[in-house]
Amino acid sequence: MQRLRIELGERGYPILIGPALLDDPAVLAEAVAARDVLVVTNATVAPLYLDRLGRSLAGKRVASVVLPDGEQYKTLDTLARVLDALVEHRMNRDACVAALGGGVVGDIAGFAAACYQRGVDYVQVPTTLLAQVDSSVGGKTGVNHPGGKNLVGAFHQPRAVVTDIGTLATLPVRELRAGLAEVIKYGLVADAAFLGWIEDHLDALLGLDTAALTHAIRRSCEIKAEIVAEDEREHGRRALLNLGHTFGHAIETAAGYGEWLHGEAVGTGMLLAVDLSRRLGWLTAADVERVRTLLARSGLPTVAPVIGAARALELMGMDKKVLAGRIRLVLVKQLGEGVVTGDYPADALAATLEAHFGAAA
Amino acid sequence: MQRLRIELGERGYPILIGPALLDDPAVLAEAVAARDVLVVTNATVAPLYLDRLGRSLAGKRVASVVLPDGEQYKTLDTLARVLDALVEHRMNRDACVAALGGGVVGDIAGFAAACYQRGVDYVQVPTTLLAQVDSSVGGKTGVNHPGGKNLVGAFHQPRAVVTDIGTLATLPVRELRAGLAEVIKYGLVADAAFLGWIEDHLDALLGLDTAALTHAIRRSCEIKAEIVAEDEREHGRRALLNLGHTFGHAIETAAGYGEWLHGEAVGTGMLLAVDLSRRLGWLTAADVERVRTLLARSGLPTVAPVIGAARALELMGMDKKVLAGRIRLVLVKQLGEGVVTGDYPADALAATLEAHFGAAA
Repeated sequence: MQRLRIELGERGYPILIGPALLDDPAVLAEAVAARDVLVVTNATVAPLYLDRLGRSLAGKRVASVVLPDGEQYKTLDTLARVLDALVEHRMNRDACVAALGGGVVGDIAGFAAACYQRGVDYVQVPTTLLAQVDSSVGGKTGVNHPGGKNLVGAFHQPRAVVTDIGTLATLPVRELRAGLAEVIKYGLVADAAFLGWIEDHLDALLGLDTAALTHAIRRSCEIKAEIVAEDEREHGRRALLNLGHTFGHAIETAAGYGEWLHGEAVGTGMLLAVDLSRRLGWLTAADVERVRTLLARSGLPTVAPVIGAARALELMGMDKKVLAGRIRLVLVKQLGEGVVTGDYPADALAATLEAHFGAAA
Repeated sequence: MQRLRIELGERGYPILIGPALLDDPAVLAEAVAARDVLVVTNATVAPLYLDRLGRSLAGKRVASVVLPDGEQYKTLDTLARVLDALVEHRMNRDACVAALGGGVVGDIAGFAAACYQRGVDYVQVPTTLLAQVDSSVGGKTGVNHPGGKNLVGAFHQPRAVVTDIGTLATLPVRELRAGLAEVIKYGLVADAAFLGWIEDHLDALLGLDTAALTHAIRRSCEIKAEIVAEDEREHGRRALLNLGHTFGHAIETAAGYGEWLHGEAVGTGMLLAVDLSRRLGWLTAADVERVRTLLARSGLPTVAPVIGAARALELMGMDKKVLAGRIRLVLVKQLGEGVVTGDYPADALAATLEAHFGAAA
């Protein structure tokens, strides 16, 4: 088992990473100090892991609430269900909420913990690679609103994160690959050596090798933690974590939400970001090819839908009149060094968009 | 105009207290830095003050949402209405929520501000004496749940509090008196000189004298701020602010919620607390009489409903088996010095309850 401490002063917490942690009462006892625990999970994960988690929490008073599975349920109504469960099971201020599942479960459960009695403890037990490398660090919790994603929420740090990599064995391979896109992202924006390590260990990662997964998750969390620690409330450097997201958003929206997984869209979006970085003279064609190859080897899509550059621009929140420099993008100065900038020529962006989305429709 | 600064490090803020502040664009400009403002108010207050506030926010983009009036609407559903309004009016992260009304409006609006986009600014414009002396300091926001009051919420400090004492002219006199109970509370737990000042200026306060109200509100906020600053997250000394609340809770519940105003129940509850303090030898009979006289002069009830001591004990969350020392009460060591203690003889508490609620039914 690997142990990583996220330093946030008195709100710091450990991330425990390894195989079969769900079956280890000592690990759970360290993570969950409370006597009373409400486990929040969903209908897909519950049959797989809820009983096992419950057994490892032996000696505590454990209740659970099983939510429907899916981003469309990340709503205030579902939040209310979790709050109802906390009340129904008479959880008090000393209770702990345990989030067993992916990012959606973690976001809802974390937000419920943030506002129940104005804040109770919560612990994450992430069961998807995306949640293990992304949502377990940063303290963002919340739900969607018909007016926008994650519009309602709180910053609330977990007490501990228990990452049992054994849970990845039941994760659909497409979701595993989407999670790898985020792992690659950390290498691209912050650590060229890690990028090389991913290339060297990609087959092991896809083969669910314990040591490789443990290292990839640990290093991803470390990088995210370093960036977040400098910028907990997201004003500056934290934006680096959005590499590929603005382009990816255009891809997701053009294809219709749900067609592309978020990680898939981010992966292809990163390819556009490195392409634009090449046009600015920061990367070589060989660098771009290296990224494309890595994404392709990971089984991730590398070709954006052909919707035309003008439509893509619109979906990125820009139109031709306010093109250059108006939207800050995360680009790559050199492999392993991301940069947030609004200072790029309009025609370089246009060329990237045309190359990937096709010329104006 | 009086100006009081609440010191909370980078989350400190000013409380501005005086007459006609609602009509003063300079005051509002200082309090509300944002260009975009959503005013949250209720159906009782809106006809009285919404237009005036809007005019004083001239030059800003101002939208409003008018909630139904009443504690029964302090719910997640009403919170959702405020969040919907924020989205509908395209308020972004730089927007400000202004709470125009009493404690319920402030609690809902503050919680909406706490969780919209994981936190936007808010400003309080309290229009009841209770809100002016109590909810404008401390950072507690939230809504009720069928399982309990204030079960869902956040700690979120306002950017500023604008206390226009002119709004008290439209406050029902019974609510003014209930607010005075809280003012008296501050004297009892923390400042004997202030208690004497209240006695000397009670007629001026009830007559809505500007100078007297300004001083009473300012001193109340100062005392609350001193106590809260030591204990922002409510673990120790902040409990002093609950003088009269445990006894008051029994009174409110016995009478049926809504029969007694919260401040009224707290007022009579304080009388029980000083009575018990006398039985412990801390106060004299003359002290108790002083408090009773002050409450009576304020027009507050001083006689609890006759429900029997046993029932009262039950409503306080105790039964005979777990009586002594199990529930911490706020008592008064000497006038102007509150104390939180679970260390009192069971028979002294029983005597106080029998004297006020009647012998066992």
